[in-house]
Amino acid sequence: MTISQTNLAWATLLDLGPAEHGRHRLHDRLAHALRTAIRDGRLTEGATVPPSRALAEELGCSRWVVTQAYGQLIAEGYLCARVGSATRVSWSPDTAPPRPRARRVPAPPPVRYDLAPGLPDLRAFPRRRWADAVRTVTGSAVHYDLGLPDPAGHAVLRTTVAQYLRRSRGADADVASVSVCAGVTDGLVRTCRALRDAEGITDLAVEDPGWGRLRDAATSAGLNVHPVPVDHDGLRVEDLGRTPARAVVVGAAHQFPTGTVLSPARRAQLVRWAREVDGFVIEDDYDAEFRYDHHPVAVMQGMDPSRVFLLGSVSKTLSPALGLGWLVAPAAMTPALRAANLVAAAPPVLDQLALATFIDRGWYDAHLRAARRRFRSRRDLLVRTLGAQVPQGRVAGTAAGLHILLHLPDGADTRGAVRAAAAVGLRLVDLDDYSAKRSAERALVLGYGNINDTEIPPAVALLREALRSGVPRPRPDADG
Amino acid sequence: MTISQTNLAWATLLDLGPAEHGRHRLHDRLAHALRTAIRDGRLTEGATVPPSRALAEELGCSRWVVTQAYGQLIAEGYLCARVGSATRVSWSPDTAPPRPRARRVPAPPPVRYDLAPGLPDLRAFPRRRWADAVRTVTGSAVHYDLGLPDPAGHAVLRTTVAQYLRRSRGADADVASVSVCAGVTDGLVRTCRALRDAEGITDLAVEDPGWGRLRDAATSAGLNVHPVPVDHDGLRVEDLGRTPARAVVVGAAHQFPTGTVLSPARRAQLVRWAREVDGFVIEDDYDAEFRYDHHPVAVMQGMDPSRVFLLGSVSKTLSPALGLGWLVAPAAMTPALRAANLVAAAPPVLDQLALATFIDRGWYDAHLRAARRRFRSRRDLLVRTLGAQVPQGRVAGTAAGLHILLHLPDGADTRGAVRAAAAVGLRLVDLDDYSAKRSAERALVLGYGNINDTEIPPAVALLREALRSGVPRPRPDADG
Repeated sequence: MTISQTNLAWATLLDLGPAEHGRHRLHDRLAHALRTAIRDGRLTEGATVPPSRALAEELGCSRWVVTQAYGQLIAEGYLCARVGSATRVSWSPDTAPPRPRARRVPAPPPVRYDLAPGLPDLRAFPRRRWADAVRTVTGSAVHYDLGLPDPAGHAVLRTTVAQYLRRSRGADADVASVSVCAGVTDGLVRTCRALRDAEGITDLAVEDPGWGRLRDAATSAGLNVHPVPVDHDGLRVEDLGRTPARAVVVGAAHQFPTGTVLSPARRAQLVRWAREVDGFVIEDDYDAEFRYDHHPVAVMQGMDPSRVFLLGSVSKTLSPALGLGWLVAPAAMTPALRAANLVAAAPPVLDQLALATFIDRGWYDAHLRAARRRFRSRRDLLVRTLGAQVPQGRVAGTAAGLHILLHLPDGADTRGAVRAAAAVGLRLVDLDDYSAKRSAERALVLGYGNINDTEIPPAVALLREALRSGVPRPRPDADG
Repeated sequence: MTISQTNLAWATLLDLGPAEHGRHRLHDRLAHALRTAIRDGRLTEGATVPPSRALAEELGCSRWVVTQAYGQLIAEGYLCARVGSATRVSWSPDTAPPRPRARRVPAPPPVRYDLAPGLPDLRAFPRRRWADAVRTVTGSAVHYDLGLPDPAGHAVLRTTVAQYLRRSRGADADVASVSVCAGVTDGLVRTCRALRDAEGITDLAVEDPGWGRLRDAATSAGLNVHPVPVDHDGLRVEDLGRTPARAVVVGAAHQFPTGTVLSPARRAQLVRWAREVDGFVIEDDYDAEFRYDHHPVAVMQGMDPSRVFLLGSVSKTLSPALGLGWLVAPAAMTPALRAANLVAAAPPVLDQLALATFIDRGWYDAHLRAARRRFRSRRDLLVRTLGAQVPQGRVAGTAAGLHILLHLPDGADTRGAVRAAAAVGLRLVDLDDYSAKRSAERALVLGYGNINDTEIPPAVALLREALRSGVPRPRPDADG
């Protein structure tokens, strides 16, 4: 086969338009062009390529360029050279029908006002101080810190977090009991793995309603999940006995999404339950830093550190984009947790050191104080505006955290309201979306973390309209 | 019960030494002291605490301080107040025998010379440029970027990585097929979950010898792992059929720890195998950026992007402490991978954006060029020094990567040599530590990424001594 007999215009092989960044060398470009032609099926398996001297002449380049390119493609398995024989294409693209491409989901309409829960005030993220902390530790870290990270987290951050949790949350924590993780979900996965491996625990009780992500995390760690109802005193501890669970995840300080605080009697009852069943409580210290009517209640973990795991993160205080959280575990669980930490990914060490610096310099406390003031007044504004604009609604939940629950009259079409709001750029969440099964209770979960004060009146006006367009429906327990 | 009748010296309650940082207020300190006394068992369940007025007098503080502290502890479940009755302690610490504390592992002797494989040159980490990149993106990121991260990774980094992999590794990658992960181990966990969920794959073939961490990661994702031997041409593809596996992890460019390159014929054979069994190849592009004798071979993934996953990271090029890697997946796997990404932790967004900036500014390429020069000459020095000092050894493996394999005569006590070396501060790894079962082959894996050039002669001298002290033993296949 001569050059002119092939259906490939060899001379155009190097006519690749502008060289992509980093691929300047002629032999790289030739190899790339040949590789592409083979992958595309323009050069088919078994076809010969021209002798290097001939192609070099054709292309007006040195023979070295061609032999380099051929050598590269031989090493990659696209070409095959045998002594005394022409170099041939030894590869063909898959001719089977292509696997179906994933269906593209249409983009939702743009969000003008975000009242979905779960975010702190992203505009208030302390960018300058965070960058300062990163720059400081990037300069000061010892070389060893840039090596393989400790799967349990860097000892400097573990020490700082233990101090913070002791003084600020009343926890029983030290450098040995604290692990650094990527957030509460990641912390729960590690905890579930440790409980499964060390205690044979296969069943976990979760709050209903509650975060779906926590249920998914537990399931991904191989545990069966059992929803247990929440009432105005928090988790119904007496219902735990109806499940086979020996472990439970609970938001004691401020339950999501109901906003209730676990009552003092229930706190004690829950720890006693754990002792009775030889089990464990996993305390999700969700947004506990933000309590507006009261000094924050200390964590349950301090009541029995041998039975209570404590999970926390900076996702609701600084930003979920930082991917930094912690996990305090009973001492007896250390070996099992070490194994669970090993298969999880350690958060980047420089970020860990930066957070330690950020806390140690007092910047975290200062940020929390400012955030607490901001969220308290924003919550008041939201509650006042709702009172005036949505009089049929009733605000529930303790004056805390970053969201409220807006109860609506029986039969209100909350699902329709969420859809109607989304159509005009207002994000809301139906309480039902956090429930194991559709309940008779009609309510919306409104997050005020990441909305401007000035946006609250127009957002509530849109909510009022969306609720009007939602036609009242029969009670769900009546229609099936 | 009066104050004097209790066995607790109430007046010493506030004598807490220096107030811990952040706990300045008197009522916080009183609450803390009471809480500690209850947890310690000094104040037992059912005991009354003094009326607030009495305790305030005793302590010389305002009654408000005492009522605040009592209120706090009532909310936390430690105290219980009933109208017309004294306030009582309502909590007792667990009196069951404490669960055993984890045994403390004795610290190993300090490492003077580190010839263990797996680390790049930590002294050469580009600290200033990395900090610059982080500072830039921390200032320029939009608020939205500080919210919940995209579980697949930030589109900016995915775009940059796709470009990098196309131009530098010959991959078939775009923003849709790239996910950002925390490294190769994390990427493998996500891949295994996606393969299990979308394809029902429960068995994974791995290279033997190979990284134990990859085996552990696959196991943690619920897959059964089947070791398949590696010879001088890389993975023995023909042996895959002896396993039930429809997926295999392979280090095509530079196998760890043998240092072999998958031969051109095997590359093609492996992709054909995947097509025949309707299976998948997971290409671990381990340290492929460092090839010293040759232009780096393009990834196999480009040969069949519908059958080959590609895993990579900056752990071997910049630092494992950054926790940043990528995963290129077949388009048909996108939905399953989306689910797998959701339960994994997304690397911090600012780090993702910083890496994108670092690459886009050309700093990554510049770093790789400098590292390639450094490692090439360091490898030469190590090979020369070993040739002079350890003549019984034979260096194997392609001139690539960050480690060599030092074959030793049959019967050499590599295990004893590793122990003897550790005792004098030299870290080495026995090839057997990476093998599924003890083989007849005696070899050491020597990493030269994180050792100074000047440290190589004294480290090799220690190695020579360690090998002398290791008494030759009968071949393992002779002793059972």
